[in-house]
Amino acid sequence: MTAPTLRPGGRSARVQESIHSAVRQLLEEQDRASVTVPQIAARAGVTPSTIYRRWGDVSALLADVALARMQPDNEPANTGSLHGDVRAWAEQYLDEMSSEPGRNMLYDVQAALKPSYCATIIGGQLQTILDRYPDQPKPSVDRLINLIAAPTVFRILFAEAPLEVEQLHRLIEIALNQ
Amino acid sequence: MTAPTLRPGGRSARVQESIHSAVRQLLEEQDRASVTVPQIAARAGVTPSTIYRRWGDVSALLADVALARMQPDNEPANTGSLHGDVRAWAEQYLDEMSSEPGRNMLYDVQAALKPSYCATIIGGQLQTILDRYPDQPKPSVDRLINLIAAPTVFRILFAEAPLEVEQLHRLIEIALNQ
Repeated sequence: MTAPTLRPGGRSARVQESIHSAVRQLLEEQDRASVTVPQIAARAGVTPSTIYRRWGDVSALLADVALARMQPDNEPANTGSLHGDVRAWAEQYLDEMSSEPGRNMLYDVQAALKPSYCATIIGGQLQTILDRYPDQPKPSVDRLINLIAAPTVFRILFAEAPLEVEQLHRLIEIALNQ
Repeated sequence: MTAPTLRPGGRSARVQESIHSAVRQLLEEQDRASVTVPQIAARAGVTPSTIYRRWGDVSALLADVALARMQPDNEPANTGSLHGDVRAWAEQYLDEMSSEPGRNMLYDVQAALKPSYCATIIGGQLQTILDRYPDQPKPSVDRLINLIAAPTVFRILFAEAPLEVEQLHRLIEIALNQ
């Protein structure tokens, strides 16, 4: 949701980072429903209108922060095998999404302008893994998303309990087994 | 979310039905964000406090209506084969969930007290199908939810476009192929 012309380190990027950081701080101190634009502005040292101009309202800003958080810090772990990499990625994904901040992120991102960014980020991660093994038969990224990421998230949002790790492992077998 | 002691046709059930019906009417006339408890009460011919007492707030009521709508009107179609039944069910599910009312329902239900009711309803439908074929090897309900329902919903909520019907058919093959 960052404007494409934004130079990293430019003034606009610094303002954005201070606003994001104010949001992250406030979310640690108080309930998300009670966070307001004037509060965020005061914490970030900007005027409320800077925030309204850029995001429109507080829910778009929360969603933007959630999306930025979702950007993984690192490449997926490289374990030396396709199976091992997918398994390490899937276990971390299950772990992160079923945590309290992960669940909140899933809700915020759905309120965002581009929730499809989710599948783009996940797809990028999985493609990175697949590219490591050019010489072996591989599933498509789509197949991995449908058979691993989708049940992980669906069970968190709509079922009594998240996937068990053994269920996750079985799904990985199915996804990698063509 | 109906209290288990509620007698169908009892006074309480009639009040609930008139409130649900008022919500459904209002949602056809105006944006969901603008629907208020006093409005619903006026339309249903009850006092606002009846609604507050029972649901607490408007979002819990909207979620309850969404859940009630999700209760399928009919048994899953009986095509004479396990494969055909699962396919008919999955196509209808994809169709309904990716419609505008379906998407709204997915959001409302997540705001509900018991979004896990979703998996319970879906599970019941799929179990009905499986029970029709006692003498053949069958996948578990869990497997069908993970491999068919989960990717359907995940792609609606978090990807650029819903599943294509051919993708859905491939997922059904995977789910039924053990």
